[in-house]
Amino acid sequence: MTATIQQTEFRDAMSRLGAAVNVITTDGPAGRHGLTASAVCSVTDSPPTLLVCVNRSAGAHAHLTENGVLCVNVLSGRHRDLSGLFGKSGLGVADRFAAGSWRVLETGAPVLEDASVSLDCRIVRTETIGTHSVFFCEVAALAMGSDPEALIYFNRAYHHLQPAATAAACCPSS
Amino acid sequence: MTATIQQTEFRDAMSRLGAAVNVITTDGPAGRHGLTASAVCSVTDSPPTLLVCVNRSAGAHAHLTENGVLCVNVLSGRHRDLSGLFGKSGLGVADRFAAGSWRVLETGAPVLEDASVSLDCRIVRTETIGTHSVFFCEVAALAMGSDPEALIYFNRAYHHLQPAATAAACCPSS
Repeated sequence: MTATIQQTEFRDAMSRLGAAVNVITTDGPAGRHGLTASAVCSVTDSPPTLLVCVNRSAGAHAHLTENGVLCVNVLSGRHRDLSGLFGKSGLGVADRFAAGSWRVLETGAPVLEDASVSLDCRIVRTETIGTHSVFFCEVAALAMGSDPEALIYFNRAYHHLQPAATAAACCPSS
Repeated sequence: MTATIQQTEFRDAMSRLGAAVNVITTDGPAGRHGLTASAVCSVTDSPPTLLVCVNRSAGAHAHLTENGVLCVNVLSGRHRDLSGLFGKSGLGVADRFAAGSWRVLETGAPVLEDASVSLDCRIVRTETIGTHSVFFCEVAALAMGSDPEALIYFNRAYHHLQPAATAAACCPSS
């Protein structure tokens, strides 16, 4: 007999799995769209492949599927507002993109100018798992930002990581 | 013409995708085993499902596949040494487990006593992507630790997150 895990219990547990915050963008025949996502991870480096989990009810889902390309823009500490905009349901696509500066690399998906790193990808395989699609993506091009900062979502709050040890960054010796 | 992304370039890029550090354990017909992994993410809450990416050449891979169960033990700041032991190639299984205290919940996979949270899972689907297996896992039981701390691997270094804002935790007003 298996214990049943409630959705709220699972969400509380998952709030303890800290994760990078990313803006996932796409463009192509279905038009431009984007959303904030933290369910992104590296899969293999041969060939360079990552995965992105997206709720099938998300406004951007059909665009991702039809365009077949996406860019994972890994956010820095300065991007909290951008994260909020791309995670705000009901906010129009133009209003989301107005808050950032964008260019393109290989696939045509929007690349955030000052991201910590941007990975421009082609979706090579999609698996449906309950309410979500898991997009497996091969990296076609990438752009590294100048600073390796991170915006981490953990315990239902944003945390800003910098390359130096946190304590040192906070409290320089004088 | 697609630009070719080199493995080293991809790894450098992925070092900017901060992620929680977890010890993945298993037990069953194939015996006990475990490894450190950061490629873990939530997939859907209906039913509660997460995924874990594991290199098929990892010592624990066959055990995971044959046992069909695993526990994701999300680490806290105090677990840096444990992370190192479960990530050390060539170190025997007994030596890895000797450094922690373990119990079982539903599936029999080892549950770390003082993890930030432990998710005890059954593997319900496996996809092969190049060098790696992606295990989709339904959560059968979970255990929340007392403290929502996090151990994050980012920019090839460990970072310790606590619930309070980092600066406040570092520099209390006096």
